[in-house]
Amino acid sequence: MTAKKANQMEPLKAPYHLFLGCGDSELAIKTSRGIAQWNPDVCLGEIAGGNSRLSLGLPKMSIKEASENGAKTFVLGLANAGGYVDPEWVPYIIEAIECGMEIASGLHRRLDEIPEIKSAAEKHGAALHDIRHGYTDLKTGKGHKRTGKRILAVGTDCSVGKMYTTLAITNEMEARNFNVDFRATGQTGVMIAGSGICIDAVVADFISGGIEELAPDNDADHWDVIEGQGSLFNPAFAGVSLGLLHGSQPDIIIMCVEAGRDHIKDLPHIPAPDLKDCIDLNLKCANLTNPDVKLGGISLNCRNLSAEEGEIERKQLAAEFNVPCFDPMITGVASFVNIL
Amino acid sequence: MTAKKANQMEPLKAPYHLFLGCGDSELAIKTSRGIAQWNPDVCLGEIAGGNSRLSLGLPKMSIKEASENGAKTFVLGLANAGGYVDPEWVPYIIEAIECGMEIASGLHRRLDEIPEIKSAAEKHGAALHDIRHGYTDLKTGKGHKRTGKRILAVGTDCSVGKMYTTLAITNEMEARNFNVDFRATGQTGVMIAGSGICIDAVVADFISGGIEELAPDNDADHWDVIEGQGSLFNPAFAGVSLGLLHGSQPDIIIMCVEAGRDHIKDLPHIPAPDLKDCIDLNLKCANLTNPDVKLGGISLNCRNLSAEEGEIERKQLAAEFNVPCFDPMITGVASFVNIL
Repeated sequence: MTAKKANQMEPLKAPYHLFLGCGDSELAIKTSRGIAQWNPDVCLGEIAGGNSRLSLGLPKMSIKEASENGAKTFVLGLANAGGYVDPEWVPYIIEAIECGMEIASGLHRRLDEIPEIKSAAEKHGAALHDIRHGYTDLKTGKGHKRTGKRILAVGTDCSVGKMYTTLAITNEMEARNFNVDFRATGQTGVMIAGSGICIDAVVADFISGGIEELAPDNDADHWDVIEGQGSLFNPAFAGVSLGLLHGSQPDIIIMCVEAGRDHIKDLPHIPAPDLKDCIDLNLKCANLTNPDVKLGGISLNCRNLSAEEGEIERKQLAAEFNVPCFDPMITGVASFVNIL
Repeated sequence: MTAKKANQMEPLKAPYHLFLGCGDSELAIKTSRGIAQWNPDVCLGEIAGGNSRLSLGLPKMSIKEASENGAKTFVLGLANAGGYVDPEWVPYIIEAIECGMEIASGLHRRLDEIPEIKSAAEKHGAALHDIRHGYTDLKTGKGHKRTGKRILAVGTDCSVGKMYTTLAITNEMEARNFNVDFRATGQTGVMIAGSGICIDAVVADFISGGIEELAPDNDADHWDVIEGQGSLFNPAFAGVSLGLLHGSQPDIIIMCVEAGRDHIKDLPHIPAPDLKDCIDLNLKCANLTNPDVKLGGISLNCRNLSAEEGEIERKQLAAEFNVPCFDPMITGVASFVNIL
């Protein structure tokens, strides 16, 4: 994975020491798990605080040990309700600063809202990377045709596998020596890649403009593989999805869908969209900034299906839409990359 | 016009003293002009600074005179490239604070970034209303069906007359004793109504959630008339438009279009959409949160047409789409309100 600088964000410095917080919720460390799974090369070690027994299977190290072994960034790949810096975490963050590390956080609230963190960072000259903040110099979208090629993951909903799909495609393309970059648009993706834009955290006026900056003009044979967000059919986040679609001006969209999901995540009163309807609306809207856009594949998340059911459903969808249908975690994505 | 409190924003206190800046650009005072035109009752007077000869035809008053005559809010209904507080304006703002007024600004940059303004406001206890900021406690959209009825202006582009259309409809409905509120979503609308949400200034995650809060559950016979923004066919701002459409869950959309516009504003490489295509896509997307949505009318901005051409085109569109077609500035909006 090539971590290139995008926009206002300074690239995160590797290697990382991953902080797993002080609780016991596996869900709360989803971001850390994504980093360990998709970019193990940047993960030096892990530390859980308090009485937490959480682990990602990385080498367990104290903050001092990690620092002595070269850790450059203490990563808070954590979530909690409210997205604030838990007071229990503060001593760990300050110790990391005192050991010379930078801090990266995907929380909604800024690290420097905590006076002790702010003053420690100032004293030691440590950078605080709040990856959901700081996108203050973006421009509005222009919709000019850019050079290079772009693939965007779209979806029927949130949390159907858009990040996994684009990471797997990027890895497969890199293995085949394509000229390719993963472009991260969410906090986990940004921490995995070390750069990007949390597009749901920018001011609404700048959604498409932010993506235009994230995936700029490039070599004619270069591919941006752009992480998708949300869905045109998710009433909470569709605005983000549409701006992302327009800003990406994709040549190819990959439709991501989870088998068996019957309603929009957390909104049981909103049924999941019909797949053809969802593909058609995405192509219709994408057409505004790239009239040559095509559906390139369907990424079917089969975690709710048996192996046999998954195989049958993938075959059916591939035949119905006349594109490769794959599950990045089961089949890999070679069938899609073959068509490029 | 009833100015009701919506969300985090404290309603602006009337009457206003309108500050026209120190330049000579009529375009720069578009917001002030909108306030003077649509809510003259709240406009006590105007003042232009430096050598500016700009006027809205309101009584010209010094800041001291305005204050003695009861002005409560000094309004910067101004725009400049960059959206910053021009140093030439600062003495006027400070004098207004010293005379006991509150300050309202629609600029991108915050008033309290200027240390003299910040300290004067603190000293005199004056509220600084940065209407493009402060929407920090919004929630994500839920898409639950809300009680009451909603009308939303949508458009083929920006600056085609969505605000004028919704203000004219609100006034006509008030004159006929409907139970109605105008819901402002842009800076001029917010200053006219005294409350609202600048929806293009919220964090992208909260577009639809912000509108759900702006137009909440209401009496069964109550109408929200919601100001629209942008267009699903404007590649800069379509994300805002889609979130606004989902969050509004309109029962009725009014399609606003400017006769003779052949491309998207400021983007000559993006052609204006076909009107039927634009109506269809808006209805298709609005369907997600209100399956009963209908096109209620077409607001045709005829400023580029002769009186005769306008009349012909309005008749043609009314016949083609089987809804009233009007120009709020020429025909009024009675033909639409008649169908409610």
